[in-house]
Amino acid sequence: MILRDPVHGLVAFEGLAEAVVAPLLDTREVQRLRRVRQLGLTSLVFPGAEHSRFAHALGAAHVMVRLLGRLAEVQHELPPEERLDDEARRDAIAAALLHDLGHGPFSHLFEEVMPDARHHEEWSVDTVRDPSTDVHAVLARLDPAMPERVAGLLEGQYRLGYLARAVSGTLDVDRCDYLLRDSHMTGVRYGIYDLDWLLRALAFGRAPSGERVLAIEGRKGLPPIEGFFLARHFMFQQVYHHKATRAAEGLIRGLFLRLGELVRDGATPRGTPAAMASAARGEPVSLGAYLALDDSVLLTTFSQWAESDDVILRDLARDVVVRRLPKTLPLPEEPGSEPRWHEALARAREIASSRGFRADLTVFLDVPRETPYEEPADDSADGLWVVLRHQPVRRLGDVSFLLGQLRNAHAVRPRLVFPAELRDEVVAAVSGVLA
Amino acid sequence: MILRDPVHGLVAFEGLAEAVVAPLLDTREVQRLRRVRQLGLTSLVFPGAEHSRFAHALGAAHVMVRLLGRLAEVQHELPPEERLDDEARRDAIAAALLHDLGHGPFSHLFEEVMPDARHHEEWSVDTVRDPSTDVHAVLARLDPAMPERVAGLLEGQYRLGYLARAVSGTLDVDRCDYLLRDSHMTGVRYGIYDLDWLLRALAFGRAPSGERVLAIEGRKGLPPIEGFFLARHFMFQQVYHHKATRAAEGLIRGLFLRLGELVRDGATPRGTPAAMASAARGEPVSLGAYLALDDSVLLTTFSQWAESDDVILRDLARDVVVRRLPKTLPLPEEPGSEPRWHEALARAREIASSRGFRADLTVFLDVPRETPYEEPADDSADGLWVVLRHQPVRRLGDVSFLLGQLRNAHAVRPRLVFPAELRDEVVAAVSGVLA
Amino acid sequence: MILRDPVHGLVAFEGLAEAVVAPLLDTREVQRLRRVRQLGLTSLVFPGAEHSRFAHALGAAHVMVRLLGRLAEVQHELPPEERLDDEARRDAIAAALLHDLGHGPFSHLFEEVMPDARHHEEWSVDTVRDPSTDVHAVLARLDPAMPERVAGLLEGQYRLGYLARAVSGTLDVDRCDYLLRDSHMTGVRYGIYDLDWLLRALAFGRAPSGERVLAIEGRKGLPPIEGFFLARHFMFQQVYHHKATRAAEGLIRGLFLRLGELVRDGATPRGTPAAMASAARGEPVSLGAYLALDDSVLLTTFSQWAESDDVILRDLARDVVVRRLPKTLPLPEEPGSEPRWHEALARAREIASSRGFRADLTVFLDVPRETPYEEPADDSADGLWVVLRHQPVRRLGDVSFLLGQLRNAHAVRPRLVFPAELRDEVVAAVSGVLA
Amino acid sequence: MILRDPVHGLVAFEGLAEAVVAPLLDTREVQRLRRVRQLGLTSLVFPGAEHSRFAHALGAAHVMVRLLGRLAEVQHELPPEERLDDEARRDAIAAALLHDLGHGPFSHLFEEVMPDARHHEEWSVDTVRDPSTDVHAVLARLDPAMPERVAGLLEGQYRLGYLARAVSGTLDVDRCDYLLRDSHMTGVRYGIYDLDWLLRALAFGRAPSGERVLAIEGRKGLPPIEGFFLARHFMFQQVYHHKATRAAEGLIRGLFLRLGELVRDGATPRGTPAAMASAARGEPVSLGAYLALDDSVLLTTFSQWAESDDVILRDLARDVVVRRLPKTLPLPEEPGSEPRWHEALARAREIASSRGFRADLTVFLDVPRETPYEEPADDSADGLWVVLRHQPVRRLGDVSFLLGQLRNAHAVRPRLVFPAELRDEVVAAVSGVLA
Repeated sequence: MILRDPVHGLVAFEGLAEAVVAPLLDTREVQRLRRVRQLGLTSLVFPGAEHSRFAHALGAAHVMVRLLGRLAEVQHELPPEERLDDEARRDAIAAALLHDLGHGPFSHLFEEVMPDARHHEEWSVDTVRDPSTDVHAVLARLDPAMPERVAGLLEGQYRLGYLARAVSGTLDVDRCDYLLRDSHMTGVRYGIYDLDWLLRALAFGRAPSGERVLAIEGRKGLPPIEGFFLARHFMFQQVYHHKATRAAEGLIRGLFLRLGELVRDGATPRGTPAAMASAARGEPVSLGAYLALDDSVLLTTFSQWAESDDVILRDLARDVVVRRLPKTLPLPEEPGSEPRWHEALARAREIASSRGFRADLTVFLDVPRETPYEEPADDSADGLWVVLRHQPVRRLGDVSFLLGQLRNAHAVRPRLVFPAELRDEVVAAVSGVLA
Repeated sequence: MILRDPVHGLVAFEGLAEAVVAPLLDTREVQRLRRVRQLGLTSLVFPGAEHSRFAHALGAAHVMVRLLGRLAEVQHELPPEERLDDEARRDAIAAALLHDLGHGPFSHLFEEVMPDARHHEEWSVDTVRDPSTDVHAVLARLDPAMPERVAGLLEGQYRLGYLARAVSGTLDVDRCDYLLRDSHMTGVRYGIYDLDWLLRALAFGRAPSGERVLAIEGRKGLPPIEGFFLARHFMFQQVYHHKATRAAEGLIRGLFLRLGELVRDGATPRGTPAAMASAARGEPVSLGAYLALDDSVLLTTFSQWAESDDVILRDLARDVVVRRLPKTLPLPEEPGSEPRWHEALARAREIASSRGFRADLTVFLDVPRETPYEEPADDSADGLWVVLRHQPVRRLGDVSFLLGQLRNAHAVRPRLVFPAELRDEVVAAVSGVLA
Repeated sequence: MILRDPVHGLVAFEGLAEAVVAPLLDTREVQRLRRVRQLGLTSLVFPGAEHSRFAHALGAAHVMVRLLGRLAEVQHELPPEERLDDEARRDAIAAALLHDLGHGPFSHLFEEVMPDARHHEEWSVDTVRDPSTDVHAVLARLDPAMPERVAGLLEGQYRLGYLARAVSGTLDVDRCDYLLRDSHMTGVRYGIYDLDWLLRALAFGRAPSGERVLAIEGRKGLPPIEGFFLARHFMFQQVYHHKATRAAEGLIRGLFLRLGELVRDGATPRGTPAAMASAARGEPVSLGAYLALDDSVLLTTFSQWAESDDVILRDLARDVVVRRLPKTLPLPEEPGSEPRWHEALARAREIASSRGFRADLTVFLDVPRETPYEEPADDSADGLWVVLRHQPVRRLGDVSFLLGQLRNAHAVRPRLVFPAELRDEVVAAVSGVLA
Repeated sequence: MILRDPVHGLVAFEGLAEAVVAPLLDTREVQRLRRVRQLGLTSLVFPGAEHSRFAHALGAAHVMVRLLGRLAEVQHELPPEERLDDEARRDAIAAALLHDLGHGPFSHLFEEVMPDARHHEEWSVDTVRDPSTDVHAVLARLDPAMPERVAGLLEGQYRLGYLARAVSGTLDVDRCDYLLRDSHMTGVRYGIYDLDWLLRALAFGRAPSGERVLAIEGRKGLPPIEGFFLARHFMFQQVYHHKATRAAEGLIRGLFLRLGELVRDGATPRGTPAAMASAARGEPVSLGAYLALDDSVLLTTFSQWAESDDVILRDLARDVVVRRLPKTLPLPEEPGSEPRWHEALARAREIASSRGFRADLTVFLDVPRETPYEEPADDSADGLWVVLRHQPVRRLGDVSFLLGQLRNAHAVRPRLVFPAELRDEVVAAVSGVLA
């Protein structure tokens, strides 16, 4: 099975990989990912970024196949029980393909707003475990114990710890694919790092804790891993934390908050999908209802809400439909500026209220934070390690000049988000605070 | 207004271009194109090909801006009345952005199957002319006569003939963008030609008919235009005429045919969008109803049909939903093979009928044809011309060795399409015909 | 041993490959290739094209390693005696690395002008066979019979015919590398084809003659091989047959012709390398003397000739040194134009003579010919074959629409070359002939 | 005049630019740069890196043309006397093309070793000022005062300070080209940054000192300038400070040191170019003699020295000719390690002496230092500035999170360099020091 991909070129699943990937691709749950965009509202700002989680899932599985190939080259140095066997390979490829199964449209926002909402990671695991899903059936047909093992991998529990961290960790196949893919599709080239070289730079090491880890081999392996973290930083700066993306997310957040109020008041708006209504009421949501959500459903929902009787919901929904985005104002970044942020928020909310807006639904502080390179201070196996000849394994930040400089530093980009109509008034009112 | 694009990199609309593009982008009709995929079912085969007609429309407008920039450099040699002025520039950019407005999901297939269905080009023109659309309002606000002029451009009628041909002709901004974009997104790199160089190679000439034309300037301009036609040929061979894409289209065609039968029998299936029902009855379709169709609507529709009471419709719809594609068998390409194609079709249909299939809805001859380089034999201004120093203008095929060899030759790729369940039987029955 | 390369990215020679490549790289004869530019005078026209035959030799060896990897995947279907073993692999890698050993600066021109000059291919073979060379010593150390086997491979004689054709044939590692490299370094992107896909499309077949051949596997393998031949055609049109390159070569040819006259008259100019003097006298040239020639030596030689007492040699050498190139005039390409070419040549030579030039050294017909896709008409194993499932092997031109159209057609680009000083006169005199 | 370039694609010099570039290209001094490799010995390690200073000079001129185009778009905000006029444009393009005229082969090493050697920058300026050069003649023909103005620009003196800094400064056209070119040709892709976007991000600002400066405009301009500095850092880490390159340079340094001793002892080795002999004696070197040096001359010289009677010179020259490189051993990087470096050096030199080597010529400490982002602490116009709307101009390091983290930090990579023959002994002797 050979596919072509705009990011990776030729994507081949052959032999063992094909036996896992091919039947999973045809399941309803994996096909559903075609209808969930990877970057949600980002395509409002970067029109090319229309790729789905389906394409990303395939990409992650492809990176896993390549990673397994690399590990096969270097694992001869390991004791047999720490080596990869076919079972582990199959589990790993399945986990890579399925890691995002539980993503719904705007699921991050929904989880954030609905107090007891389950996280998409949990839904992914549920989908694998639930005997009613196609995915479960396919895995169980390959091996009755496989659903449970793959679910474990997705939860970070596996007999080979390094494999669990390759599914979800500092350097995992998820990030490896999405950085390249999001970078490629947005047209923001700085997210591109050298995956070929990075894979070739990986080897096995043993952390001071005694645990087996994937590690960077030698100084010649530094550039690709440095490039990887820089790519991630650039993507945060330019795409994930882009002011218009964040403003659009603020709009959706307001919409979901209002939905919650209405549902809890017994006034569930027409067109609300069952899963959202249940969640808003704090009731359990069935897996089937959850998986029925996708971008098409949400778009239709928003259109219906745009005709709602509730003026607040209606206005917010209309703003989404015709992409009338809130405005943003950058706030000072210096340490100790937080009181000024809150002063600015208070002033803007006052204006919003006086002009008839629901200030709590339309005026926000948005404070995206990012740590370009995080490194544990202890000796846990997490984080990244470097193996240098004739030397004990070292933390990446102790070997890389660049990452040593960035280690555990936080980039913060605070902004005030508010309705476009209030721009001049808010800017005037807030400028005193910011000067 | 500066956007980033995976295909063109930085896409800037500034000054005059921004004044046209920015307000049009926010119209409902242009935003609707976000919900219509450029390549329809192709993403079943090339998973990366999820781009929408919205991204393509922006790309076409960008190419038009670049083309106008090139023409501004070389038009000093023209008499004033043949030069581009700001009005023409605005019209051209608008036409490039709006040329695909009338595309619905699978519109090619729908037009083909519904006898009196209007073509998407007509819907595009209608959308521009209809005073009720946002697009019309935006254009009329720029200049009351602009909707009519832009509609004219889309129909090939304009005071500057070369501009009409740049909107729709052998070398137009539509093709310039879609070849690059489709190539990029499918991961099939052979559709990439050198747009920079191609634009720089364009100049004005005068066809033997006396008409002003865009022409290739000098032999050094041959490689990019040869590359353009080869790119198109490669895309037909690998993507547009890919056997799985064509098989999937055959499935949709059968579905639409069955819909027509049911509607005309007065048994319109539940969930059928109004526009489709009207069209199937041969009744006029309102613009509003037509524009309400998009990929989300069709996907929902197919899901509903998959639960239909009509077994034939239901089975076809289910095949679409779980992407159970028909199989294909290549037929001989040699001239004079047509009788054998029909013999093969007859045998396969016989088998299908005997196995309970509606043979006319499930077994097809698929004969995609393509002319890599078409050149008029007469002296009309159409087609492409080359300007060589001190020489009369010549047809491109007379100057380019490569295109001269390919001139007006047809590539045909005949196939038999039939249900996957019948594979072995059909292959056995047909092999005698093909040997 | 991992190198980085602007064309292929990571170039790794490991295991068996490293054992062959590493010691050969350090030989004087291979290192000498650093001082011979791949494209001779082309860097006068394409300033980036400064790459040496050393970089190309490494690239060809890399392509051979990749080809051997592909063949290892598909050779299980062969009878054991037709399979590749380690001996054949080592021989093939060595032959790929060494195939251009015998190239001197402008060796094509020199061979053409000096009646009995040996061809660079013969020098390559001699260098491998001669026990006094470092290369011979390295090969003999690996295996005493290896120099002879490698020399055989370079001459097209080997127990595995398909391997000999992969060293030198229609689709060989030499072309595979130089098309990509020359394209890349000149900045002429049309010479880039998809090597990854091409390698993956190769399989074994059996020609109608019964001989084992490398073949294209299936229709999906057509695009990369079509792209390969088109890339070659584009490079001929734009680079190898570029008018300024050909004009510069005309200048060198005149210089070498004059050198021959002087040497044969007993007036060998000061600074003439021993090998060139011997060759001009028709005497045998020793391998050592031949290998002492490189770009540096020729550049120094030209500088010395630019101070020669012989006015004719001096003027030609000065033109080379300050790159004062002849002019060219395109001649008609239509069949049957040859008499007009010769008439134009006669007129231009008359003018040159009357103005004091040695017409035979400075005025030339230049008629570069190229066959974009050549296909034997008989059943010999040469040329390219396609393997389609359940069908006999077919000639590539019978399966590929594009190559079928181009099969055995010749592109000719005749030009008149003459001193720049005579431009106006020659154009005036010749225009009558060309009209 | 349109050229193709592997780095920049189409390189066009038209109008004013062509009037300057075309005649300069044909001068002997600019053509000489074809015979001086940009990266000296680096092609021993990165075989593709064979590009000359000629290609780089053209690239730098091209970047200057593009920069001037950008400045023309934004200079309307400047008072007339600070704007670019045609004279300044011509001067700037000439300076960009000529900035490396004075580079000889290994000129950095030669300057370092010969106590009073003039620096290549001075030779560049001399070549422009000296009335006997072709370059001077061409400039003077364009405008009699032009040689002096261009020489001034090269020395950093010009009526428009920002233009002088664009020729030589933190962000100059020299770096802009060589980072891309060296990265491209070595195949080390991390040196590639987004030049298009960087140029578009430039605007005029006014430093606190009151001086006019080129500045980054807005936060959206941060990624390309951050990318630029990271690209530079990566190139230092991977290429310019690569251990094998540095080792090879150590070899040449030893050779030049020995040459100096011999010349001063009155035993100038046969084949020594006049300029080198004079410099070694501390005598003035004529411009003509200096410009006679190029890579070909040095290669020939090294070959002759390899047959020298002086054993020390001979052995070193032979090592160069057959590229027998010294070995290197990494030394600790922690602050305060310097005493250990010197202890290691002493031990290694002792071993070398005891084994018959001239320790001072063959054993070195190599301590390459690099400051990825340097920022003046004062308010001088140097360094880089950012213009944010409605705010005073700020230092780049105060706005960019990444560069703020790196500001004025030094990366040091100390190594011991010594003859390969001594490897085991030196490693053993030194390991105690390093533990």
